[in-house]
Amino acid sequence: MREDIDVLVHEVGPRDGLQAVAATMPTAGKLEWIRAEAEAGVRQIQVGSFVPPKLLPQMADAAAVVAGAIAIPDLTVSALVPNLRGAENGMAAGAHQLGFVLSVSEAHNQANVRRSVQDSLDDFARIVEYRDANEAYRHVALSGGMATAFGCTIAGRVEPAEVMRVAEALVALGADRLGVADTVGYANPGQVKALFEELYRTVGREVAIGAHFHDTRGLGLANVFAALEAGVREFDACLGGLGGCPYAPGATGNIVTEDLVFMLESMGMRTGIDLDRLLRAREVMERHLAGEATHGAYAKAGAPKGFVPASAAAA
Amino acid sequence: MREDIDVLVHEVGPRDGLQAVAATMPTAGKLEWIRAEAEAGVRQIQVGSFVPPKLLPQMADAAAVVAGAIAIPDLTVSALVPNLRGAENGMAAGAHQLGFVLSVSEAHNQANVRRSVQDSLDDFARIVEYRDANEAYRHVALSGGMATAFGCTIAGRVEPAEVMRVAEALVALGADRLGVADTVGYANPGQVKALFEELYRTVGREVAIGAHFHDTRGLGLANVFAALEAGVREFDACLGGLGGCPYAPGATGNIVTEDLVFMLESMGMRTGIDLDRLLRAREVMERHLAGEATHGAYAKAGAPKGFVPASAAAA
Repeated sequence: MREDIDVLVHEVGPRDGLQAVAATMPTAGKLEWIRAEAEAGVRQIQVGSFVPPKLLPQMADAAAVVAGAIAIPDLTVSALVPNLRGAENGMAAGAHQLGFVLSVSEAHNQANVRRSVQDSLDDFARIVEYRDANEAYRHVALSGGMATAFGCTIAGRVEPAEVMRVAEALVALGADRLGVADTVGYANPGQVKALFEELYRTVGREVAIGAHFHDTRGLGLANVFAALEAGVREFDACLGGLGGCPYAPGATGNIVTEDLVFMLESMGMRTGIDLDRLLRAREVMERHLAGEATHGAYAKAGAPKGFVPASAAAA
Repeated sequence: MREDIDVLVHEVGPRDGLQAVAATMPTAGKLEWIRAEAEAGVRQIQVGSFVPPKLLPQMADAAAVVAGAIAIPDLTVSALVPNLRGAENGMAAGAHQLGFVLSVSEAHNQANVRRSVQDSLDDFARIVEYRDANEAYRHVALSGGMATAFGCTIAGRVEPAEVMRVAEALVALGADRLGVADTVGYANPGQVKALFEELYRTVGREVAIGAHFHDTRGLGLANVFAALEAGVREFDACLGGLGGCPYAPGATGNIVTEDLVFMLESMGMRTGIDLDRLLRAREVMERHLAGEATHGAYAKAGAPKGFVPASAAAA
């Protein structure tokens, strides 16, 4: 973690938000949005996904977006990769961090990538091996993401013991970071606090751990607070809650970046992000969205009277 | 607290929700809604406010609604009272609990009821005196409510020391219960946990303490989790987030009852409330609302696969 922030807010809208939106945003629009968020102080942005273009045409320009984004000062550029081929392309494009995601739920992993959890762990091993074998890529951080860590739309309950097993395997294989995702919005704050406490006991505090929450049932920010209580200091979020939830019309998907930043800053935790400029970045995003619905409370309500964000107080 | 629940969910929609809605719901509609929620297992409902009808025509039938509601088995019927006159009427109507509310913020109390906080405390003393002087009313529980306890739209910051001072005064005057309200949606979970911890240290654990949160900036349920961590076990909420926020178009006002119940039940805390029947009560409410907007995530997303509510598991 950089010294000038207390919590890392990882914007994933250009990937997770846009991949859930039917229309394809032009590369220049994505880069204008990414630049505006970086200017607001966002330190890490997931700018795309290196998947086959015919699967996700919205992500076909991932290499171009990464190339544009790495020119922005002070920004960590991350991208999602589903396999070794994607990781090769992501490293070649110049991404600083690559996120590989498997589902802890065997049934969900099979449905999603048609392979067992063990096969996915083997894929991750090959990605680490490829990174380590190439001098030029040794600086690339590899994140091991665990989807459906709090429950699964197919299997229902997911055992914490399974999460621990997969987490230990990812760390043993060389993950620089773990991501724990409530992919389908099943988590509750009691469960979140307990799972992260157990995870820190299991893998220690050397490996950074990030949380990815959905707000499908309204508990997204409650889950963030629970994770904060357990010691988590990295959170994924989507500006304007972009993308929604494909299974729940009108419901939000990822937690809303500006609401998350407001919560953290009002709790005295520095994110380095200026909320006014973040709302301007939100307008930039909306301009390129062609009417797609956005979500979020802070954008409607604004700041409380006399509100002093932690980042401003520290500056 | 009754032995068969862990957390008391206090539905305030027929009062707080409806008073923010322009149209007046007929008495029969209110009672059908209240009955449906009681049948879903809601144990306490604030059914109206004893204010002058010309100030709030939506509440003009408060006595009739109380009279109808106290006939419902197993339901604690509460009402809001702004002064002694309101309390007299509330007790005469048969309410089981009366809530008196003052603003901790001097400026907000002046703007709201045109008197000082001390004058409002004197009003509360007169209500307690009246209750105690009337044998027939000795069973009526009196709640001392503290509005703007986490911040004020006029004064901005509100000092925790002021909240403690007012809380101690209310308890000394004979409050059976304290209500702590984030009237304007300013609170953050760090602040909430700290304030309730200090409040318990100040007044002890003999007096029940309830929390009233608004979701104006999206932090409502995060604040509930923070209050739970401090030991709070009573929460106000509005079915369907009825009423919204007059200062933030499209934003929710009170936290959403069904989202709150989902959170508590999924955390293993029994509310005694059946979520399916609660959603049916929501439909009853909507039928009488003439198109007023409702809010909430659970009603859109439904239960997670394999979800077993704590109340069902215990039954």
